[in-house]
Amino acid sequence: MTASAHIVTVGAMPSPATDGTAVAAALGAAGVAVVSRVFVEDDEGALERVLGADEVLTVVLAGGGGSAGDIVRRVLARVTGARLVLNERLLTTLQERYRRLDRPLPRRAERLALLPQGATVWVTADADAGWAMENGQRAFAVLTRDAALQSMLARHLTPFAREWAGARGAAMIRTLRTAGLAAADVEERLVDWLGRDGEVTVSTISADGEVWVRLRARASTPAEAVKSLAKAEAGIGALLGDDCYGRDGETLEAVVGRMLLERRLTVAVAEACTGGLLGHRLTSVPGASAYFERGVLAYSNRAKAELLGVPESILSAHGAVSGPCSEAMARGVATLAGASCALAVTGIAGPDGGTPPKPVGTVFVGVVVQGQALARRFSFSGDRAAVTWQSTQAALDMLRRALREQT
Amino acid sequence: MTASAHIVTVGAMPSPATDGTAVAAALGAAGVAVVSRVFVEDDEGALERVLGADEVLTVVLAGGGGSAGDIVRRVLARVTGARLVLNERLLTTLQERYRRLDRPLPRRAERLALLPQGATVWVTADADAGWAMENGQRAFAVLTRDAALQSMLARHLTPFAREWAGARGAAMIRTLRTAGLAAADVEERLVDWLGRDGEVTVSTISADGEVWVRLRARASTPAEAVKSLAKAEAGIGALLGDDCYGRDGETLEAVVGRMLLERRLTVAVAEACTGGLLGHRLTSVPGASAYFERGVLAYSNRAKAELLGVPESILSAHGAVSGPCSEAMARGVATLAGASCALAVTGIAGPDGGTPPKPVGTVFVGVVVQGQALARRFSFSGDRAAVTWQSTQAALDMLRRALREQT
Repeated sequence: MTASAHIVTVGAMPSPATDGTAVAAALGAAGVAVVSRVFVEDDEGALERVLGADEVLTVVLAGGGGSAGDIVRRVLARVTGARLVLNERLLTTLQERYRRLDRPLPRRAERLALLPQGATVWVTADADAGWAMENGQRAFAVLTRDAALQSMLARHLTPFAREWAGARGAAMIRTLRTAGLAAADVEERLVDWLGRDGEVTVSTISADGEVWVRLRARASTPAEAVKSLAKAEAGIGALLGDDCYGRDGETLEAVVGRMLLERRLTVAVAEACTGGLLGHRLTSVPGASAYFERGVLAYSNRAKAELLGVPESILSAHGAVSGPCSEAMARGVATLAGASCALAVTGIAGPDGGTPPKPVGTVFVGVVVQGQALARRFSFSGDRAAVTWQSTQAALDMLRRALREQT
Repeated sequence: MTASAHIVTVGAMPSPATDGTAVAAALGAAGVAVVSRVFVEDDEGALERVLGADEVLTVVLAGGGGSAGDIVRRVLARVTGARLVLNERLLTTLQERYRRLDRPLPRRAERLALLPQGATVWVTADADAGWAMENGQRAFAVLTRDAALQSMLARHLTPFAREWAGARGAAMIRTLRTAGLAAADVEERLVDWLGRDGEVTVSTISADGEVWVRLRARASTPAEAVKSLAKAEAGIGALLGDDCYGRDGETLEAVVGRMLLERRLTVAVAEACTGGLLGHRLTSVPGASAYFERGVLAYSNRAKAELLGVPESILSAHGAVSGPCSEAMARGVATLAGASCALAVTGIAGPDGGTPPKPVGTVFVGVVVQGQALARRFSFSGDRAAVTWQSTQAALDMLRRALREQT
């Protein structure tokens, strides 16, 4: 038997704010593997079907102010066969929260403080509340997608999950993330590992324009799982080499940011078709201001010439979607910013604007590192969002590989 | 009985590329409501538990090159009690696809062409394949998250879902999206509608820094559902007024883009703490080049002064995170770009950089529309990603409200 978990988000569509990544990290810290993430309408029937009878820990993320909380408490009472009773601790917490917001306690507060009998209330310093309960082999934790989620995870969910998982054996999942490889390439390299039965099962996943290798170890104790995972990881890591940029939740932008910091370098960006996504990814890493100072979104030819000094001769001879233009954009923004590195992206994200020699998905990336410039052409498939995402992925990976050469 | 669907994504974490929004739209066009979206590990046991026995249409999105496809075909054969047989049409399609890629057909191609008996293969012009099968009251469609998804949805999934749903009655869901309101404000306005039993049930959802009102109509025919939904929507729409910016899949950036187009106006952006996300959201709308020409990511004070002409006096008197600075940034980028409108965002996204007078989450948005400038202060809660997202949401909504005044 292994300790695994579901994450259920109620009443919201998948998005960066609702996808449960932070919850999965908190569970991972407790040795609990997330095997599914579910987004369900705030509908009692639908939620009840989703909760099921598995011997797992289910973490329910409900919206802040809406009716989802009511639905969750009713369904969980039904599923566990517990009565809904007024929870004094939760009522006190609600009173405190409304006092701080300087708002009157709503008349329905007593209803909001109903919880299944036996539930434990988790309260943060900011008077936000979550709750948890165990029921036979199952356990449930109910959290709100709000400001206090992070402290709730660290202070309450991880310890709760660790204790619950204690007697249930360990399932550990490791993800090795690659960039610049097609799925077929990865499968060819790992042909001796894929589909083999053993302590560790290995599979590949294509996700967001990159390929991940997923290692899953099952063992009777966490220590054994760690050991067999480490052995498999070493073998597979050697086969992937430089094409593996990170593991588990490590993003390409975080890895690139760390490399820039270590080398005391800075980066500037010049974006056409990506329209800001590259800058957004680089600056989404806490502390990015240490290496990111500015960027330019140059959608039009005029902007490319005025802001980045791309020569008219390049635009007229090669066009804005060309290697020379991407290189000139990168050089231009590096000079403008006084940055040691620069990335530039220009391409055709679609759905319109493609031509036979340069169809939709044609993207050029220019990279400058310490005065050395390089441009590459890519052909991406998919819709506008997919082309844009893959363009930023390719740009970050080109910078990563160029930075490896710098010591 | 109503026609509803699950979307199951195998072996990928929630992300813009995997979240099934396009699938949900294709099902919506067929009158089928999506009641859950599930992300599951590429693990046979986990997938089998997820597929369940509901009388629903389940759309499975599997990764392109990985092992997920194998798992899906095996589990669906087991769940439906069908034998896996070689599907000649699928084998021919695979041969064609590898021929076009100029790659040898892998030895496992015959295994890739195994499908549960009775499955229908869907092939696109690009030789990409999906498949579908009905099993009693259930139906399954298996699609690949790749370039061909869009054409697969329009050509195959929507007609299939429409036919399957035909005899099953109609469930229709409408989402009215609001901006600038807290959940409590929306609940107060809709107090007469929320939690009421009737043909249409109404609930609120807090999602990504905005509040949605969800209307769910159940009726025996699609026509009846449409009628009761329209009636409820008219009543609720009147209560929400200008605070409702769109419905269903309409994003704030798409609505703002349409308003700019209608008024023949252009917009430029100057971003500090949002680092490119605002430009990315504006340019993620197809055709954005008609109204978006450039933007500036000015992370440092130097960049704000050099690129946007923010006066030293403002930076020293008020600081970079201030209303005057956001207004000067907006005016600066509007002038630089020769744009009729501009948005500027400056703030503290965290986790570091907060001070007692300006804690993490303090954000100023400056808006310029036809020479008229306006700045507002916001206090957002949540982590770096949440603050950044809400900042772009506030900026887009300020522009939307300012544009309503322009005819």
